[in-house]
Amino acid sequence: MINKILNLSLILLVTFSFGQQLKSPNGNFTMEFALSNDGTPTYQLIYKGKQVIKTSKLGFELKSKNMDLEFDSQKSVEAEKAKALTNLQSGFKISDVKNATFDESWRPVWGEVSQIRNHYNEMAVTLHHEKTDRKIVIRFRLFDDGLGFRYEFPEQKNLTYFVIKEEKTQFAMTGDHTAWWLPGDYDTQEYDYTESKLSEIRGLFDTAVTSNASQKQFSKTGVQTALMMKSTDGIYINLHEAALINYSCLSLELDDKNLIFNAHLTPDALGDKGYIQAPTTTPWRTIIVSDDARDILASKMTYNLNEPSKIDDTSWIKPVKYVGVWWEMITGKSHWAYTTDFSTVQLGVTDYSKAKQSPIHGANNKHVRDYIDFAAKHGFHAVLVEGWNEGWEDWFGNHKDYVFDFVTPYPDFDVKDLNAYAKSKGVELIMHHETSSSVRNYERHMDKAYQFMKDNGYNAVKSGYVGDIVPLGDFHYSQNTVNHYQFAIEKAAEYQIMVNAHEAVRPTGVARTWPNLIGNESARGTEFQAFGGSKPNHTTILPFTRLIGGPMDYTPGIFEMHIEKVNPDNKSHGNFTIANQLGLYLTMYSPLQMAADLIENYDRFPDAFQFIKDVPVDWQDSKYLEAEPGKYLTVARKDKNSSNWFVGNSNGVDKRSTKIKLDFLDKGKKYEATIYADAKDAHYKTNPQAYVISKQTVTSKSELNLNSAPGGGFAISIIEKK
Amino acid sequence: MINKILNLSLILLVTFSFGQQLKSPNGNFTMEFALSNDGTPTYQLIYKGKQVIKTSKLGFELKSKNMDLEFDSQKSVEAEKAKALTNLQSGFKISDVKNATFDESWRPVWGEVSQIRNHYNEMAVTLHHEKTDRKIVIRFRLFDDGLGFRYEFPEQKNLTYFVIKEEKTQFAMTGDHTAWWLPGDYDTQEYDYTESKLSEIRGLFDTAVTSNASQKQFSKTGVQTALMMKSTDGIYINLHEAALINYSCLSLELDDKNLIFNAHLTPDALGDKGYIQAPTTTPWRTIIVSDDARDILASKMTYNLNEPSKIDDTSWIKPVKYVGVWWEMITGKSHWAYTTDFSTVQLGVTDYSKAKQSPIHGANNKHVRDYIDFAAKHGFHAVLVEGWNEGWEDWFGNHKDYVFDFVTPYPDFDVKDLNAYAKSKGVELIMHHETSSSVRNYERHMDKAYQFMKDNGYNAVKSGYVGDIVPLGDFHYSQNTVNHYQFAIEKAAEYQIMVNAHEAVRPTGVARTWPNLIGNESARGTEFQAFGGSKPNHTTILPFTRLIGGPMDYTPGIFEMHIEKVNPDNKSHGNFTIANQLGLYLTMYSPLQMAADLIENYDRFPDAFQFIKDVPVDWQDSKYLEAEPGKYLTVARKDKNSSNWFVGNSNGVDKRSTKIKLDFLDKGKKYEATIYADAKDAHYKTNPQAYVISKQTVTSKSELNLNSAPGGGFAISIIEKK
Repeated sequence: MINKILNLSLILLVTFSFGQQLKSPNGNFTMEFALSNDGTPTYQLIYKGKQVIKTSKLGFELKSKNMDLEFDSQKSVEAEKAKALTNLQSGFKISDVKNATFDESWRPVWGEVSQIRNHYNEMAVTLHHEKTDRKIVIRFRLFDDGLGFRYEFPEQKNLTYFVIKEEKTQFAMTGDHTAWWLPGDYDTQEYDYTESKLSEIRGLFDTAVTSNASQKQFSKTGVQTALMMKSTDGIYINLHEAALINYSCLSLELDDKNLIFNAHLTPDALGDKGYIQAPTTTPWRTIIVSDDARDILASKMTYNLNEPSKIDDTSWIKPVKYVGVWWEMITGKSHWAYTTDFSTVQLGVTDYSKAKQSPIHGANNKHVRDYIDFAAKHGFHAVLVEGWNEGWEDWFGNHKDYVFDFVTPYPDFDVKDLNAYAKSKGVELIMHHETSSSVRNYERHMDKAYQFMKDNGYNAVKSGYVGDIVPLGDFHYSQNTVNHYQFAIEKAAEYQIMVNAHEAVRPTGVARTWPNLIGNESARGTEFQAFGGSKPNHTTILPFTRLIGGPMDYTPGIFEMHIEKVNPDNKSHGNFTIANQLGLYLTMYSPLQMAADLIENYDRFPDAFQFIKDVPVDWQDSKYLEAEPGKYLTVARKDKNSSNWFVGNSNGVDKRSTKIKLDFLDKGKKYEATIYADAKDAHYKTNPQAYVISKQTVTSKSELNLNSAPGGGFAISIIEKK
Repeated sequence: MINKILNLSLILLVTFSFGQQLKSPNGNFTMEFALSNDGTPTYQLIYKGKQVIKTSKLGFELKSKNMDLEFDSQKSVEAEKAKALTNLQSGFKISDVKNATFDESWRPVWGEVSQIRNHYNEMAVTLHHEKTDRKIVIRFRLFDDGLGFRYEFPEQKNLTYFVIKEEKTQFAMTGDHTAWWLPGDYDTQEYDYTESKLSEIRGLFDTAVTSNASQKQFSKTGVQTALMMKSTDGIYINLHEAALINYSCLSLELDDKNLIFNAHLTPDALGDKGYIQAPTTTPWRTIIVSDDARDILASKMTYNLNEPSKIDDTSWIKPVKYVGVWWEMITGKSHWAYTTDFSTVQLGVTDYSKAKQSPIHGANNKHVRDYIDFAAKHGFHAVLVEGWNEGWEDWFGNHKDYVFDFVTPYPDFDVKDLNAYAKSKGVELIMHHETSSSVRNYERHMDKAYQFMKDNGYNAVKSGYVGDIVPLGDFHYSQNTVNHYQFAIEKAAEYQIMVNAHEAVRPTGVARTWPNLIGNESARGTEFQAFGGSKPNHTTILPFTRLIGGPMDYTPGIFEMHIEKVNPDNKSHGNFTIANQLGLYLTMYSPLQMAADLIENYDRFPDAFQFIKDVPVDWQDSKYLEAEPGKYLTVARKDKNSSNWFVGNSNGVDKRSTKIKLDFLDKGKKYEATIYADAKDAHYKTNPQAYVISKQTVTSKSELNLNSAPGGGFAISIIEKK
């Protein structure tokens, strides 16, 4: 695959001390690698002549294999040795440098575009730690949209099995940038974003932390990736990671005196941060940079840094547009639990056949059939049903080990009959596996659970990890738990099952390698609009942050913002307009899109609902027309299977007018555009359901004047006239 | 099953304050339960009018669900409440007492006897914690051989899900008894026994601790159960537990000022000792007592306190006498690893087909066939083969997660061919699953591993848990890990597979409920004779301690004590005689018995080997003829399938003469006795291979004069003359 390799070792050996330069294919980027005086590897990144990452250190601190020795003065010599072995950051010499260039295109199974170019220049620096005779490789890949680098541990005598105490990677900022950040946390990603200067993070941290089913912060300046920033001179910088496999999830801790981000890995129950066996590599650390915010959204660098698909036959992996028995539970209108008879449940012991059915158990045969009928009538592919299986009466907050078995339905949910009925209507049912974060229990039942799906005709599962990880002590984003999510994805692939994992670790482009991972939550989704609401500009930030690593099962399409109209006891308010919700089907790209609201709410707005019915979930091309994090973004996408285009806008808190050129349309063709826009007086709070739908004929020469309300947006379908 | 219930509640309510008395069926025991002034439950045990357990406290300290509150003066009221909820030891009132008596007999699938009587009087005391409105039940069962009691947590509002900080059960000794003890440890049971007064434990503790692949002590007066003791006035007392299911393993910590043993449970990675969901029960705490040491060996109380078999069809569970490719690796003569080419192995990546086969890889086709031939020729049921599967090159000490897959053989081990060959000779192969204590990895592969066994004709597995538990932080005997061993046993039963788990938690009679658990190691086995040797009287203690909970795969039958004759580099010496080794097939009862030595060593002593060929592994009756812990024991057992008897003796460090009455033989029948005894000048150290074999005709009136050498013993086969 490597098109050509230039081995410059000999020449470079001479010039090592002066540092190594790497340029991007288009020349916009220069990465410079150098060793400091004490042999600490460093890098810096220059974009269009301006430094965007100042000289930053690289390396690791390892855990001593002889902790006891270190505190034993009797054994000071061994202790000295043990100590020396923990240093994998300084004392290096460059022993080799290899450069290469790579350029190929690949076709994703699903995506925003039908073809992705993977074009970069590469520099692999081999570093020798002379004092302990250990070597590591730092591999840099410089693309036209940014830098990726990772650590590699070749097979060698003195560095085979070791434990990482902390990764010492730095990202030194050039100024007090504006950042859109989430509090760093080992257990949750479901916070609202805070926009502030880097120097303001510490002061705003506590207010940025809201309560969650499981959470653990580590520092008042700790933040999560993907971290979106903007410099005062208009440079957009995005920090994240790619290919998080068998490693601990990366967070960043800001040294706010020096404006340096230091890597902070998620620990396990012992506080250790990584068990490594050479030969292996770390995930890639990514820095996407541009002076045009749209380039950040369009970047495919994160996917390009992942391995090609390991699934040969991907014919069973299909984008899905679905409805479900879900929002009613989130709002409190109905319940997951079958009964209120039991305060404690023991699977296999508790007898549900004698229990009194709760009148508000959502997942009952009649109600699910209604959703199947609705899906069939309106052309949805699938119906998700939650609360179908035994165990929901005491599933949360009790740290139960054997909390679900994933194969035993409640008495009022007929698995075989409902799947048969769905199939007869050309609809699929989506399985739901809430694990209550009892990961050992899920792994124990996984084969049976997946086999049960195949036996009953399910081909996709939504999994959930609500609450603290059980067995207790570990965290959602530690190496152990990251391995679990990956284990579930790969085993699902064996069964040809698509996975949509909620509360799992934030994606890092692994869906390129395992395209059956069609969705994740891993951020604050629509559900929070029923839990008190999210900030009105939330969805103008997510595409710059959470979506950098992969699609989100955001579950848009809520038409009723006054949650009390669904459940009188719930006073929450959804901070968006109906037009905004329609726009999300474009701005929040995902091959898995839900129409999340209740049937009755869609029946109230059939004309607006038409857009959700029409919008595709797979694309041959995408054009980001305008974008500014926290304020707005507008994207145009071309249906993968036709020449039709669809445009979506998500708007922040300020009312906004814009003019959209349709020059992306095929020249000479005529299209009918249907525009779903906010009404003049629409407002996410005071008048969220006011929208106007208009139609007009358009061509590639057309321009559209459009308005977005506060918390609003718009959606346009552009259908070719034949 | 309960023959009659006497509900004395009403009467007893009057007399609660004066304590509750319970007597054993034969009247030898009296257990008295009472509440102390502060409402702490207590018990004491009287045997033949003498107190054997002084007034001892019962109860629990729970973990606060609001630890943070406790240290927050702002919230002192909630903190007070949280604190109050952690007390489940004092402040109780008796709300009910129920007495019952029970008497039934049951037939074990395998065992020392064909029928076991389960006869006890029972008292169930319901205690109400008024301040917090919580209740627990303490159930006492008093047998003719001792006391068992457990805690029960009924379903209730205020005590459903909780965490045990420590179990507060006490065993208050009446004097400074002699004890045969092992250092308390969360990770190993493989120590030599130390004989000392209770008051001497602290001083001897450090010397009693020898190095092990994984170990963690918790106190200088911590000891393991089953703990064997003898009082100065000749009373034998054994403390252990029964039915250890979904709970942490019990150790004992001696308060050596007051000679009180306090329960000490094994913690998890967080230091927590038990996650409980009511309704449930704890394991039984057992106290076996007699003035005749033989009664301790004959006691079936531990099995009686376990549930009847949960396996309906047990026809596939069969006692096994086996040989194997094992001792040669233990001694270092050959290796488990296939090659020395790899310093690091990655399963599925490392290519063994190109590796150079080590000349001393034990599990090769030719060598295994030799063992199959040997087993067939001498009438053994099975052949164990270790080191057959990929991964042994770096399996130990590296805390690898994916260390074995349990289904991929080395290139020189043909699974299908060897099983076919074994079957053609009427022999079974025994599977080996070393987990390297990577329990998550084992659970991930367990279904495939067991299915692989069935597909290839294996019906039994030896599993191993060498090294620290992975993921790191947990221990071998914590609730999590105890659950894992149980999970493996129950899943094996689904596949009709027999389990022999090494380094797993010490057995507690669970084999009654799951008779496919045909063996455990869980103590210092014969292997240590090749690691420096064990004390010569080791096997005169194990039957009083380790074997109380179930059979041990001790692997006797070593005929060559000078290990360097097997491997010149190994200077270890086995501290036993050949006659001692033969006696172990009787004194160390197990339905699974190995002839552990090499073929060539058996070929050197064919006359002695004859006894191993003749001795059965299943029994209709057993008579303990003489016994003294640490000194000697002699047992006679009747073959389950004939009228033949077999007698075995294990002797300690002192030369010993004895006279054995054969009055257990059927009256009027004639038998030929073949006596395998130590030669006059035999000695475990200086002359271990000196034995004499003699034959004589005997009847029930016969008496035999027998001598045992230091570290010696004898074995006798008594075959009916037809």
